Amino acid sequence: MLIVMKKDATQVEIDQVSQSVIDQGFEAHPMPGAQCTAICVLKNKGAVDANMFSNLPGVREVIRVTKPYKLASIETHPGPTVVEIRGEKIGGNNFTVMAGPCSVETEESMFRNADKLAGMGVKFFRAGAYKPRTGPYSFQGLGEEGLRILEKVRDRTGMGIVTEVMDVETLPLVAGSADILQVGTRNMSNTSLLKQLGKINKPVLLKRGMSASLEELLLAAEYILSGGNHNVMLCERGIRTFSNHSRNTLDVAAVPALRALTHLPIIVDPSHGVGIRDKVLPMARAGIAAGADGLMIEVHPNPADALSDGPQSLPFAPFSELMNQVGQIASVIGRTSGSSVQSI
Amino acid sequence: MLIVMKKDATQVEIDQVSQSVIDQGFEAHPMPGAQCTAICVLKNKGAVDANMFSNLPGVREVIRVTKPYKLASIETHPGPTVVEIRGEKIGGNNFTVMAGPCSVETEESMFRNADKLAGMGVKFFRAGAYKPRTGPYSFQGLGEEGLRILEKVRDRTGMGIVTEVMDVETLPLVAGSADILQVGTRNMSNTSLLKQLGKINKPVLLKRGMSASLEELLLAAEYILSGGNHNVMLCERGIRTFSNHSRNTLDVAAVPALRALTHLPIIVDPSHGVGIRDKVLPMARAGIAAGADGLMIEVHPNPADALSDGPQSLPFAPFSELMNQVGQIASVIGRTSGSSVQSI
Amino acid sequence: MLIVMKKDATQVEIDQVSQSVIDQGFEAHPMPGAQCTAICVLKNKGAVDANMFSNLPGVREVIRVTKPYKLASIETHPGPTVVEIRGEKIGGNNFTVMAGPCSVETEESMFRNADKLAGMGVKFFRAGAYKPRTGPYSFQGLGEEGLRILEKVRDRTGMGIVTEVMDVETLPLVAGSADILQVGTRNMSNTSLLKQLGKINKPVLLKRGMSASLEELLLAAEYILSGGNHNVMLCERGIRTFSNHSRNTLDVAAVPALRALTHLPIIVDPSHGVGIRDKVLPMARAGIAAGADGLMIEVHPNPADALSDGPQSLPFAPFSELMNQVGQIASVIGRTSGSSVQSI
Amino acid sequence: MLIVMKKDATQVEIDQVSQSVIDQGFEAHPMPGAQCTAICVLKNKGAVDANMFSNLPGVREVIRVTKPYKLASIETHPGPTVVEIRGEKIGGNNFTVMAGPCSVETEESMFRNADKLAGMGVKFFRAGAYKPRTGPYSFQGLGEEGLRILEKVRDRTGMGIVTEVMDVETLPLVAGSADILQVGTRNMSNTSLLKQLGKINKPVLLKRGMSASLEELLLAAEYILSGGNHNVMLCERGIRTFSNHSRNTLDVAAVPALRALTHLPIIVDPSHGVGIRDKVLPMARAGIAAGADGLMIEVHPNPADALSDGPQSLPFAPFSELMNQVGQIASVIGRTSGSSVQSI
Repeated sequence: MLIVMKKDATQVEIDQVSQSVIDQGFEAHPMPGAQCTAICVLKNKGAVDANMFSNLPGVREVIRVTKPYKLASIETHPGPTVVEIRGEKIGGNNFTVMAGPCSVETEESMFRNADKLAGMGVKFFRAGAYKPRTGPYSFQGLGEEGLRILEKVRDRTGMGIVTEVMDVETLPLVAGSADILQVGTRNMSNTSLLKQLGKINKPVLLKRGMSASLEELLLAAEYILSGGNHNVMLCERGIRTFSNHSRNTLDVAAVPALRALTHLPIIVDPSHGVGIRDKVLPMARAGIAAGADGLMIEVHPNPADALSDGPQSLPFAPFSELMNQVGQIASVIGRTSGSSVQSI
Repeated sequence: MLIVMKKDATQVEIDQVSQSVIDQGFEAHPMPGAQCTAICVLKNKGAVDANMFSNLPGVREVIRVTKPYKLASIETHPGPTVVEIRGEKIGGNNFTVMAGPCSVETEESMFRNADKLAGMGVKFFRAGAYKPRTGPYSFQGLGEEGLRILEKVRDRTGMGIVTEVMDVETLPLVAGSADILQVGTRNMSNTSLLKQLGKINKPVLLKRGMSASLEELLLAAEYILSGGNHNVMLCERGIRTFSNHSRNTLDVAAVPALRALTHLPIIVDPSHGVGIRDKVLPMARAGIAAGADGLMIEVHPNPADALSDGPQSLPFAPFSELMNQVGQIASVIGRTSGSSVQSI
Repeated sequence: MLIVMKKDATQVEIDQVSQSVIDQGFEAHPMPGAQCTAICVLKNKGAVDANMFSNLPGVREVIRVTKPYKLASIETHPGPTVVEIRGEKIGGNNFTVMAGPCSVETEESMFRNADKLAGMGVKFFRAGAYKPRTGPYSFQGLGEEGLRILEKVRDRTGMGIVTEVMDVETLPLVAGSADILQVGTRNMSNTSLLKQLGKINKPVLLKRGMSASLEELLLAAEYILSGGNHNVMLCERGIRTFSNHSRNTLDVAAVPALRALTHLPIIVDPSHGVGIRDKVLPMARAGIAAGADGLMIEVHPNPADALSDGPQSLPFAPFSELMNQVGQIASVIGRTSGSSVQSI
Repeated sequence: MLIVMKKDATQVEIDQVSQSVIDQGFEAHPMPGAQCTAICVLKNKGAVDANMFSNLPGVREVIRVTKPYKLASIETHPGPTVVEIRGEKIGGNNFTVMAGPCSVETEESMFRNADKLAGMGVKFFRAGAYKPRTGPYSFQGLGEEGLRILEKVRDRTGMGIVTEVMDVETLPLVAGSADILQVGTRNMSNTSLLKQLGKINKPVLLKRGMSASLEELLLAAEYILSGGNHNVMLCERGIRTFSNHSRNTLDVAAVPALRALTHLPIIVDPSHGVGIRDKVLPMARAGIAAGADGLMIEVHPNPADALSDGPQSLPFAPFSELMNQVGQIASVIGRTSGSSVQSI
């Protein structure tokens, strides 16, 4: 950590800051410069709280050099984390597609959808039994009944189940049915939920908050990792910007940026990222071209009948084209699907 | 609602959309224009889900005309909501200051702080017993012990207690101690928590999410209101933008904008809004000048010792100046403090 | 255009607005609804200025249905525009790479760079003779001397020259040397310059402003097109958002979004889009995967010696890998390079 | 400047970076830390270009400590700059209101407007003769004829004239008529224009770009200042963010933030900042409460007839109320109007 003093800081102020650093158990190295003096803080074992020094008289700025997360950092775990679920591998050199409708709907509709997706080689079926909706008057999901249907889908097709968990109360229930617990963008900073997820042994797909920096995303992952659950996957699903041509701005560059910071698998969700069906295919291609470990795609047999998110759901035909094109692009950059290459 | 058809939409497509509108129980009025045909949807009682139509063949865009929230809307409750707590009124023609440290610290420090604030005429003491922190290694609050200290502060000074509730599990505990339950920016979209808050009889201060639109904020309020709890106050605390000179961008214009949309009281939090002590006073003045019903200010006897958010906490002297200046500005625009005008 | 009246608008106000529409030579069709009355404006030939009505008493909102640009719109020119320069085609089914250093440097360095790029099949050499720099103390470009060097590069290698024009004064000079005139992000809204570009017969590469909506970008193009110059290409080069892991946020989804709105060719500039060398390759792949008609890439034989933008310039080896990978991805989605497929 | 090396940087890499620093004529002080080594660059006279070092092998990050602007900095000119125009002072302890319509319209309309404003004590009349419009089909201003009308307004009322200059070609013409040259938000980065403005002796009101950081705004000012023109005023007029309830997000906190960085006067433009008439008054109050040196307000006798920006223009009655309220708030924070206190 570097503490930059104001141009007109007095020697007394510089000495006080140095002493304050020493009082915390660190070493202080003042470096007088042409413009101002900076004090280098050494011997700190981990991240130091900048607030401890930024208030002291004469201090202009405190510059952090060490990352505030550890377990999520590539520096402490240089190789990629590979999450293994029902024999499928996510991360590393693999490439995974998770697909399904936004919400669990009728058993019949789910079976129809799942049978088709399984036939195209999809290994993970996504659908929400509990839905976080912006307003109280929107469909909130089938709840426990939805979980039962998802279990039947798994029994029937062999696909792993990805479904969202919204709160600590329903966590045991959802964890009992899901193979991957999805934390939605609205809950990325729900630290009470993150702490509980750290205590269970079930893979978590953590979606980036709409206005979260990558550091905040990695710190949210750190909540789970530090609890003991090491099977965390990150998901870029679009951020909120002024740009209004798509529902969110899919921050595709977050993929290589996260790759340089963390060992955790990175999934891209172009369906929520753009929110418009016509743009899902090109952005799915962009996500995999940028190096993502997988995609999460909303697919619905008849999007006009979807109970939620119809406008961004793909029918089967364009989804099949998507599987074909992203499979080819994956192979350009040397990736193979988590299990059955031929299926993509 | 208005359904705009594509320029090259066929008459068959137009007829299908019209029929689809009628099938939902509404009236459809096609309006052929020079550029394209638009279909006006009438007889809808409340908001209609745009998704039902935006997927149909030939549809270019669905334009919503009705607001999706009702109980929070000024249209259904034209006069201002005034929340009354321990004899103090928030909203209407009143002006309220809530002040205190970021986190509950030692009893001694809290008493010292609270005595001083009560002496300056502050009627609500704010401090967090449970703290939502970005990373797991930061101080997470004193928890239940902090609630006990806050109760003692109330007994000692008569000030109402504002403190954050982070999850459904601790809600009964926190609600037992607090006079106002604060929902933090990270939990604005935690709908599980919002639903529970709708079921209790305790005023809620709902902070705007970092990237929430005003409509989303009002829909979050609607979750609480529709549960039966009508004592909801909104809080602008800064949004996330590219502008990096302050911790967040305090969206001061949200105050008059919300005023035009809702009857709920509007509080401004300049401490989190800018995150830098030197800018709290001018932005507190700006907030009240823009028409806020109150301010929430972080005050600490010795900010350098604060366990969290020290850099944005005001010592007593500048806070006293703040009370003086905002009181004068409040009177310029015809507001009086919730109880004792002379104290501000 | 649709004029939505306030819920409590009087019949007199509704009549006044209708009359005002008629006075402008349009037809007015009032449509009374359950929540409010809307007045549909018909018979307008092009875009109508919303301001004319939004001020009238009782008006809540004016909703534009027609796009404000015409010549840039896909509705008036359904097929793709293909710009042909020195025998190379940009747009349509073609795929084009423009590459070179940020600034023109010494003749020797330019020759070394250009020879190599031409050898890799690059058909357009980019380099700035006039540089828009954020501050006055940064290197501002070689100016006219730089243009002479660029002409020699063209004579030597046969590559077309892409270089930035910064103002009306130097436009004749730059247009005399360049094959493609680049308008930088800082000048996208410099309407004086855009108007002059409309009067000359030279292809223009128009970069999106840092905070420009797609509509604003297309209106900037419309300035050039409406002057009579139809050879306009658009360039996505990153927008400004809160996301701070890259220099800008490359809005990859702008590619399919623009494709649905306009017939003009779309180029992606990942070098400025991310500003970090390691991310240029994955984002170049993402850009072409999303369907861009071409890429603009900063390449420098020795980035550490670059006079500007060194950190985002690629050395030859990774650029060669880029050419190889993007060529393969282009073929996945059925594109061929503008001239010589084999070279990519 | 501080050069932070990667965790795994070798001693050879550290030595090479140090040597590179020395080769540039600076001093290098390597500081080995627990996590990584940082190299402090000393003896640099001004800002050093980070690019020179950020490319070197083993370098993780280059952290700039010195600001890149000098003449605009409060460090080189601690007292406030006071611009004096026709006997009126802007900056320092003064408070100035500039008002008028968006565009120059008919002489009759301008006289009617100006007479009224002068009668209310306004000392500067604003109106655009040349208008930067987003699209080519909008009204582009009266041009030279508009300048003639503005001169007559000055002769008639004694008010100083503020009008926009859009390009170098019309600069002599506009400078011949104006008392203050306004640089619009779209031209903040038009460095060709800024350089010319540095060479003339006429006050400049420089508006912040829609997505400009404060550093970029100050560097734009530095272009003018470094040319020799020291009469520069800055203007906050709203930035572009996701928040869509107002036309732009007025970044009120930029006022105290700029105050801490620069000696130049700071004007707030709430009319463009919010773009909605009803919000102009509260945001004008917020701007002055935050400490602005003045306000720029759009006023029109009959906004519904305005040729541009009608929706954000105030009629006389609310403007009179604005003058009254902001005058009172100005006096709360110890400011007086630039000339005649009684008039406000």
